[in-house]
Amino acid sequence: MKPYVEMTKEELQELRKELSAQYKEFQGRDLKLDMSRGKPSAEQLDISMGMMDVLSSSDDLTCDDGTDCRNYGVLDGIKEAKELLADMMEVAPDHIIIYGNSSLNVMYDTVSRSMTHGVMGSTPWCKLDKVKFLCPVPGYDRHFSITEYFGIEMINVPMTPTGPDMDLVEQLVAADDSIKGIWCVPKYSNPQGISYSDETVRRFARLKPAASDFRIYWDNAYTIHHLYDNEQDHLIEILAECKRAGNPDMVYKFASTSKVSFPGSGIAAIAASENNLTDIMKQLKIQTIGHDKVNQLRHVRFFGDIHGMVEHMRKHADIMRPKFEAVIETLEKELGGLLIGEWTCPKGGYFISFDSLDGCAKTIVAKCKKAGLVMTGAGATYPYGKDPHDSNIRIAPSYPTLPDLKQAMELFALCVKIVSIDHILSEKA
Amino acid sequence: MKPYVEMTKEELQELRKELSAQYKEFQGRDLKLDMSRGKPSAEQLDISMGMMDVLSSSDDLTCDDGTDCRNYGVLDGIKEAKELLADMMEVAPDHIIIYGNSSLNVMYDTVSRSMTHGVMGSTPWCKLDKVKFLCPVPGYDRHFSITEYFGIEMINVPMTPTGPDMDLVEQLVAADDSIKGIWCVPKYSNPQGISYSDETVRRFARLKPAASDFRIYWDNAYTIHHLYDNEQDHLIEILAECKRAGNPDMVYKFASTSKVSFPGSGIAAIAASENNLTDIMKQLKIQTIGHDKVNQLRHVRFFGDIHGMVEHMRKHADIMRPKFEAVIETLEKELGGLLIGEWTCPKGGYFISFDSLDGCAKTIVAKCKKAGLVMTGAGATYPYGKDPHDSNIRIAPSYPTLPDLKQAMELFALCVKIVSIDHILSEKA
Repeated sequence: MKPYVEMTKEELQELRKELSAQYKEFQGRDLKLDMSRGKPSAEQLDISMGMMDVLSSSDDLTCDDGTDCRNYGVLDGIKEAKELLADMMEVAPDHIIIYGNSSLNVMYDTVSRSMTHGVMGSTPWCKLDKVKFLCPVPGYDRHFSITEYFGIEMINVPMTPTGPDMDLVEQLVAADDSIKGIWCVPKYSNPQGISYSDETVRRFARLKPAASDFRIYWDNAYTIHHLYDNEQDHLIEILAECKRAGNPDMVYKFASTSKVSFPGSGIAAIAASENNLTDIMKQLKIQTIGHDKVNQLRHVRFFGDIHGMVEHMRKHADIMRPKFEAVIETLEKELGGLLIGEWTCPKGGYFISFDSLDGCAKTIVAKCKKAGLVMTGAGATYPYGKDPHDSNIRIAPSYPTLPDLKQAMELFALCVKIVSIDHILSEKA
Repeated sequence: MKPYVEMTKEELQELRKELSAQYKEFQGRDLKLDMSRGKPSAEQLDISMGMMDVLSSSDDLTCDDGTDCRNYGVLDGIKEAKELLADMMEVAPDHIIIYGNSSLNVMYDTVSRSMTHGVMGSTPWCKLDKVKFLCPVPGYDRHFSITEYFGIEMINVPMTPTGPDMDLVEQLVAADDSIKGIWCVPKYSNPQGISYSDETVRRFARLKPAASDFRIYWDNAYTIHHLYDNEQDHLIEILAECKRAGNPDMVYKFASTSKVSFPGSGIAAIAASENNLTDIMKQLKIQTIGHDKVNQLRHVRFFGDIHGMVEHMRKHADIMRPKFEAVIETLEKELGGLLIGEWTCPKGGYFISFDSLDGCAKTIVAKCKKAGLVMTGAGATYPYGKDPHDSNIRIAPSYPTLPDLKQAMELFALCVKIVSIDHILSEKA
């Protein structure tokens, strides 16, 4: 195909007519497709239904150490669950605390605690004139919502194919002690599916922040969420690397089983240095008598160990892989060579990132919606919902069925074409 | 029995010797008894084991409105669970939000949000020089820990047999706009088992606080936790009463199923006015994608409806009643007429409150411990752990077996006698 920019005005207008007819035809189909969030499909949920059978009234709900999971107690998680999640998070069981059903909530809580109580003895952030966070962009909207909610100023840091622009990160954190954190999804990032390179992780661990209470918010949401058996991204473990670099306290690592077992009914955890955990426990003992140990035990009995969990993730991969491939194939087939968009080809995670021509993303998403396809709102991948290029669109292939997804991607590509033509024509005018 | 104060020094010394011998005998038994917390017994947990069978892999985990409980979504709780907990909390389903596993966590969160974001548009408390809470005493130590953690000044308000001293409450909240809340356990209170009288509730609803962001923290933890079928305390419903009194936004009501199903694996909720809920939802949507809906559904399927829940509570009562009665009987038998202590006789809840002679509580609890009986720490029922009279001791009869409990109470009474004699002798000296 000829790139659109090389086409004449007349050629584009002719093509526009054709595509408009196709769009009308799509509108006639009365579609209701949702690709807005990283929600597992019903098929994926089905593979975890065994969770519902591992604990019955005839089972003993007691831990190896004698803890009755049905009663109060155990603030940081039952031993068995700590072992399982420690293996998943690639840290020692002593370095994790198990929480409730949501790692997002743990991150919220971490920021909230820092606002009211500071970090390991530092001034509470609510007493400071200015608190800032670095936000690699495009990134995860719910991260940005948390910092926005607390009035924390967010500074965009561009993502590169190897992770955030580390020159900029190093420079900013060293120069400004009001910068207290950076949001990271280091593996199969949201939305690009990028995994940070070894060099990036090493540079993170060696940061020299001006603020002693600066922390890396390492949201390892997709740590075992591979698409392929033999092509898996590998990440240097950040806690160990920070320790080696002499910065043991600089990172909080988050994870959950939301996209392993059931979203909303999984278990979440934080991993951090002993100093950080001691600091966190001071809050935790006030905040709760303990999290849901029965659900912790349920996870342990269902997965058995990390090998069981990894085997389980292969079933997820078998469902996710064809969907990712269908998205990429459609984009290549429909948009390849047209120079009106770029996209990522992740080896795991939940998202594919699409970049349209500058100034087109909002219009593309709106056009999809008018034909019955809901995408993540354009701009959502940037702090304050403001994509300075209006170009990034997050594609979430997990929720629709494969036939629906193929249809959705055809419609998406069609909208990209139409909006791009309009954009090019308006520039030519 | 003759009151100890009326006995001569010699009589007391003689008695002291006898009691010391008994105490030695107790020490020889190598007891390990725990009455420190309001933990249900294993027998009580067993009656909820059916919870483990209501959801199996062959069951449909879908709500009536089509919500798949296994997936993300639904911020404020599934409709069925809201109905169940609304009936339990005696409010309309529209007025509640279902949370995770712990109402304590909801209360923490409510204070935390007020610190960082204020209440319905008021100045965030962290920006104020001084924030105060009223604390009816004796009260629940974990309430006091939350306000202490946030640096909120706590003011003691004495409990009376009909609830907090309302003259004092009315006067304080009207005079001081830095008073932002009051901790209440209005039914079968912790630790006294007192239920607020109709007049008390009406006066609460008619408070005229100087602070517009003053809220009553109404922790209705024991709302359906009766000991008897025909002798049940009844409380005027506070949300409705506040609405009638023209103060619809003045109260947050909290409850959970912790002592209905499994502590730590139940579901918690807040009930409040629409204005308050709108304010809370602004935070909630940032904080989480949703709470554990599978566990909500599990509760709904297990209890069916409020009648099922009430029937279930009768089973708890059948286990708790003999324990409460054993405590009261032992206290009456051992201490009746001695004028060295007073105790409450609640008709529900989890605690009995004991008041020793002034200045004796710490010593009594320490003496119990030395013979193998752990009681709640003396002072715990007061803010900052400081009981100005050093007299209040919380008795938690639920956890031990009945034979253990009887033994524990005999030991307790013995320690009260010994410490009281020492105290009286030292005053006579």
